[in-house]
Amino acid sequence: MAQKQYSVRLFIDADLINDSGVVLDRAQAHYVSTVMRKQVGETLVLFNGRDGEWLGHLQEIKKNHALVHITELLRPQVEEADIQLFFAPVKKIQTSLIIQKATELGVKEIIPVQTIRTNADRMKAEKLQLQAIEAAEQSERLTVPIIQEIQKLDQVLKNLEDDRALVFCHERYDGKDAVSVLGSVKGITKWAVLVGPEGGFTDEERKRIMSCDQAHTLSLGPRILRAETAVIAALTLLQALQGDWRSAIN
Amino acid sequence: MAQKQYSVRLFIDADLINDSGVVLDRAQAHYVSTVMRKQVGETLVLFNGRDGEWLGHLQEIKKNHALVHITELLRPQVEEADIQLFFAPVKKIQTSLIIQKATELGVKEIIPVQTIRTNADRMKAEKLQLQAIEAAEQSERLTVPIIQEIQKLDQVLKNLEDDRALVFCHERYDGKDAVSVLGSVKGITKWAVLVGPEGGFTDEERKRIMSCDQAHTLSLGPRILRAETAVIAALTLLQALQGDWRSAIN
Repeated sequence: MAQKQYSVRLFIDADLINDSGVVLDRAQAHYVSTVMRKQVGETLVLFNGRDGEWLGHLQEIKKNHALVHITELLRPQVEEADIQLFFAPVKKIQTSLIIQKATELGVKEIIPVQTIRTNADRMKAEKLQLQAIEAAEQSERLTVPIIQEIQKLDQVLKNLEDDRALVFCHERYDGKDAVSVLGSVKGITKWAVLVGPEGGFTDEERKRIMSCDQAHTLSLGPRILRAETAVIAALTLLQALQGDWRSAIN
Repeated sequence: MAQKQYSVRLFIDADLINDSGVVLDRAQAHYVSTVMRKQVGETLVLFNGRDGEWLGHLQEIKKNHALVHITELLRPQVEEADIQLFFAPVKKIQTSLIIQKATELGVKEIIPVQTIRTNADRMKAEKLQLQAIEAAEQSERLTVPIIQEIQKLDQVLKNLEDDRALVFCHERYDGKDAVSVLGSVKGITKWAVLVGPEGGFTDEERKRIMSCDQAHTLSLGPRILRAETAVIAALTLLQALQGDWRSAIN
């Protein structure tokens, strides 16, 4: 894994094919030339979530676009863990942190959830999608998670596939600890992690979640964690015990 | 653990003894009366890191102080995990996040570390200590972690006790995964977690760390994590596998 680090790494929509050219849009051209001060002939890294990660050389830099010549496959696309994150947005800055961290931690899809104590007036999925792209570029992910529009808790639970395990992080839960719960699940490849709003779920919401057949309820320790800390902690444990953090020795 | 939640929870220096009185300072009196709009006779929660957590009643509120009558022990003081965090500060906002999250995750002592790629011009331990107090108040911790002044990496490694395990989070490490490494350590009660700056340690620094007898080197997965994400992930795994997150079922 001691790969070389390139200073510019961008997500683009276009297909990435060896010895072909791709066009960077105005914003990306500005970032590459003005912010990062790259010049024609210099290298950058591109990925599109489908074709792996490629090295490219800048061929032309204009104000409204730039051209990149694709020259070398750095990493092939690989299968990623199928993890959904359901979280209840409260404050804008926390939502941004959650999107960023969930991206770093390899989540495939993020669904903001409307609960009784959610405050989601300012939730804009489109803006959050841009934050996810930036986090993916910087974390060297090969994909970008999909950010969905906000959904009601009932709807999220109703839409949950039968073969997807729901990891429910329960504040003040005195049942089994996280390692016991996650370590004992076998044969599951599809996961969802549900973290509530600050102030928690209502008793009724909690009962509804825990009555799901797919729910695995766990405790994240004796202290009260902020929502973004709980998201990171739960995703860390899931990746470490069941996801792609295990593969280092295999 | 289904304890009642009180809206105001404050850390103070004074001894907490049943049926005695304690004085809140000007800043705390302002917070209690003006921000939280508490009135004489109402309750709040106090802790000092030594005497457990106590319920108190507001007896008097003035501009420069407030008096609280201590009436009931809510939780006795308990032994906490002995975990030190060594981190290399880079940006101010990240340092604040790291202090807050490490506090939520139960760290006992935080030592900022000067490395080749550290940028610690604006590191003020005193200000960080206030952030740790606020995070302890909100996370319902019974103690506040101690924030030390910044130390050089060499000094930190030299001062490490023989019986303290050093958990080294190594970017791009292709050795053993985190669960295998942490799960296999036996008989250790004193821990330290070392997370590098963004940009990483230099090769020489890395060699020096890994040559410590107490070092346990682990990978935090295939993506590049920001420093604050790595801190949260490492502390989560340590608490879940060796620390106080295991106690829920015992």
